[in-house]
Amino acid sequence: MSSAPSRPTPPDWAFTFHGHRCPFMPLGYRMGLLALEHLGVDREPDHRLHVVAELGEGHPQTCLMDGIQVATGATFGKTLIEKTFWGKLAATFWCPEKTAVRYALRAPFLDGFGKFEFFAYRKRGIEPSAIPAAVTREVIDWTLAQPDEAVFAVAERPDFRCAPPKGSFNKSLCSICGEYVFERYVHLKDGKPVCIPCSGYSR
Amino acid sequence: MSSAPSRPTPPDWAFTFHGHRCPFMPLGYRMGLLALEHLGVDREPDHRLHVVAELGEGHPQTCLMDGIQVATGATFGKTLIEKTFWGKLAATFWCPEKTAVRYALRAPFLDGFGKFEFFAYRKRGIEPSAIPAAVTREVIDWTLAQPDEAVFAVAERPDFRCAPPKGSFNKSLCSICGEYVFERYVHLKDGKPVCIPCSGYSR
Repeated sequence: MSSAPSRPTPPDWAFTFHGHRCPFMPLGYRMGLLALEHLGVDREPDHRLHVVAELGEGHPQTCLMDGIQVATGATFGKTLIEKTFWGKLAATFWCPEKTAVRYALRAPFLDGFGKFEFFAYRKRGIEPSAIPAAVTREVIDWTLAQPDEAVFAVAERPDFRCAPPKGSFNKSLCSICGEYVFERYVHLKDGKPVCIPCSGYSR
Repeated sequence: MSSAPSRPTPPDWAFTFHGHRCPFMPLGYRMGLLALEHLGVDREPDHRLHVVAELGEGHPQTCLMDGIQVATGATFGKTLIEKTFWGKLAATFWCPEKTAVRYALRAPFLDGFGKFEFFAYRKRGIEPSAIPAAVTREVIDWTLAQPDEAVFAVAERPDFRCAPPKGSFNKSLCSICGEYVFERYVHLKDGKPVCIPCSGYSR
């Protein structure tokens, strides 16, 4: 006898964190778990795993990245996830001493996904928290029923390099506003340390 | 009789999300809650509240931003939090029809904060998850005991404008790699739609 494999669903707190129910956060969660498994690493407690997401702004489905944060521990606050601003539904997962791997949502999956009523609501400008729960559940359930191979294209990227900047704890007081600035970002103005907004330089 | 005011501490799931215990995530959480209260808005379920954080990379204390995500619902996945890369411990909270407000960590608070043993471990390169729990608890407890006015400088920013890009659901298949690209990021090459990495343009 065969049974459908169980698909991972995010813990309840992930929906609390995210703020609403939608199909993208759970999809990013699933992508993140698969990537950890592929890399053979645990959820990141500190600062090793990095995610380079190919999404951008002003387009839908960015909520994927909250699922990735939740699953992998590569959080924005730990400066472990960044965007390339390419408008693509893909992300590369990199960990020192491992071969990086890229996960992308397959076009045929997205074609099926896009036919659900959830998207008709979104295109009318209805925010996710205002969409009827049954409509949201329908697309989440359909997504969970799709096999991993139908949803994700997976490619190892042996040449992918991620070079996190070397950190420093040094900081100076800005001589104009009096606030602390970490040294990497301190500029000089009339020979005195200043922060970027007080410097008048754009960066 | 007087009693110390109770200070907000993040829910347990916030530490699970973040991946380790440190004093910065709880400090960002507190900053985020105060900002919501100042603005008079609830935690963001969808896409209204935006946070412009003045932090950067390659410096400590960025974990503040995970606390801000947790408290406010202005998450990276919803494209509601961004960094200016100024290396400053401050963030501006903006919501349509409200006066934006900036919270910054005060320099004297940071001077006291920086004397705790937790930072001696960090400067020796010990990751937060490997620092003895009592050492981490000591600095978290001290931070919680400091009054809001000693920790945060608060300034309304009536001229602050945030202009989230207008969204579009349109997307095209890249004629080279066959992956979907949201329209804002589609380029043309030999008259055909291509994604940024296939285009050879840098953006």
